[in-house]
Amino acid sequence: MLREHEIEIRVRYQETDGQGRLHHGNYFTYFEMGRVELLRAAGHSYRDLEAGGLMLVLAEIGCQYYLPASYDDLLRLRTIVVAARGARIEHCYEVRRGDSLLAEGRSIIACINRQGRVTRLPSFLVDG
Amino acid sequence: MLREHEIEIRVRYQETDGQGRLHHGNYFTYFEMGRVELLRAAGHSYRDLEAGGLMLVLAEIGCQYYLPASYDDLLRLRTIVVAARGARIEHCYEVRRGDSLLAEGRSIIACINRQGRVTRLPSFLVDG
Amino acid sequence: MLREHEIEIRVRYQETDGQGRLHHGNYFTYFEMGRVELLRAAGHSYRDLEAGGLMLVLAEIGCQYYLPASYDDLLRLRTIVVAARGARIEHCYEVRRGDSLLAEGRSIIACINRQGRVTRLPSFLVDG
Amino acid sequence: MLREHEIEIRVRYQETDGQGRLHHGNYFTYFEMGRVELLRAAGHSYRDLEAGGLMLVLAEIGCQYYLPASYDDLLRLRTIVVAARGARIEHCYEVRRGDSLLAEGRSIIACINRQGRVTRLPSFLVDG
Repeated sequence: MLREHEIEIRVRYQETDGQGRLHHGNYFTYFEMGRVELLRAAGHSYRDLEAGGLMLVLAEIGCQYYLPASYDDLLRLRTIVVAARGARIEHCYEVRRGDSLLAEGRSIIACINRQGRVTRLPSFLVDG
Repeated sequence: MLREHEIEIRVRYQETDGQGRLHHGNYFTYFEMGRVELLRAAGHSYRDLEAGGLMLVLAEIGCQYYLPASYDDLLRLRTIVVAARGARIEHCYEVRRGDSLLAEGRSIIACINRQGRVTRLPSFLVDG
Repeated sequence: MLREHEIEIRVRYQETDGQGRLHHGNYFTYFEMGRVELLRAAGHSYRDLEAGGLMLVLAEIGCQYYLPASYDDLLRLRTIVVAARGARIEHCYEVRRGDSLLAEGRSIIACINRQGRVTRLPSFLVDG
Repeated sequence: MLREHEIEIRVRYQETDGQGRLHHGNYFTYFEMGRVELLRAAGHSYRDLEAGGLMLVLAEIGCQYYLPASYDDLLRLRTIVVAARGARIEHCYEVRRGDSLLAEGRSIIACINRQGRVTRLPSFLVDG
């Protein structure tokens, strides 16, 4: 399984707030995009996973903010798989603009089935 | 069927944009809240409607903006059923702050079933 | 001035709703991205425009929905300048997935200055 | 200064995702509403604070998710000031539906001035 992946994200006007900055809640949407694109880069599709009856749900997530991002900034998001075992995947995230580290995040997601029961990750998602 | 209903909405910080104003796209979320609360005030629940296999989907929607709304403004949204016949309901919307009319909207929603096929509205939603 | 421009947009998970479809309100965020990228493709920047004291605000906007979009769909958005004169620009929008036309929109934006007064468009935005 | 405050929040359709659940990122918008309403209940206004040249920005935030929330659920959000000293306020948050604890959050916000410099909290926000 691919361990890390980087994507570019352009800050949308709608994502800024009254301070003219990227609203802090939108980083979590970016992290989700990072997870999805890491999966795609590894040759898998989150959509297919769901169609097959598995869902990945957030158990916990957090973010530390160092520097603000503004409208129209072109950001780079690095998504890293820290561990993937049993029913859980731990990711961490780094958001950069140029050389500046703007924010770092971390999440734990759990795999559940259609009945909402925690389920082992499919083998292609698990650490070798 | 109840023909109109009014709710209060407090503008959230997250809903403003870099201009410090309520972002224009969020009026459509407000209109949706207006439709749901009009239904609830009439003794029905949109959640139950969906659980029963019917969905109301947007066929068209639009908004005219006269004056901006700001963070923390307390707005009043009036939602009016203009017509409800066959598979379609036409609503219009008025957003006010005090005596000022900030925006007006209009939408047409269609009733579909789980297969995505257009379906007659349940009788309790139809014009007498 | 460039008259039309096309961008690709991947539907985000956060942009879907309980029906598993792209929520209708998000099309307006897409249209905004289309306007910004058309401006950029013409060699201008909306951010610079605002920094220079001009804002483009929505006077009206609307959308007609023909077919739903789903999570992870790769959409093409075509943004077209219909007219740009005085203080107003009229755009229209087409959202496609493959050959299917999913939605069409139309908006009128007005140019205002920092005092909120309607102001002539800068010459590079006006029809020849 | 008031130490805790509770508000009710109705889950909006637009806030759910393809799983039919409240999208995890929206809890952070709820937490922000909790902070604003706690301030209001204490007789202050975040809008006035900003108008006076102070902004409260997120230094870090996180959430643990125990049970999902669905469209139209009526949730109770309790916002608690854990500490407020110097330039920082620590809050924690509890989201409940009936007797069920759905999620818990925690954040640290910092007070900055218009130049973006970290600044002491105004005295009415500081621990006695």
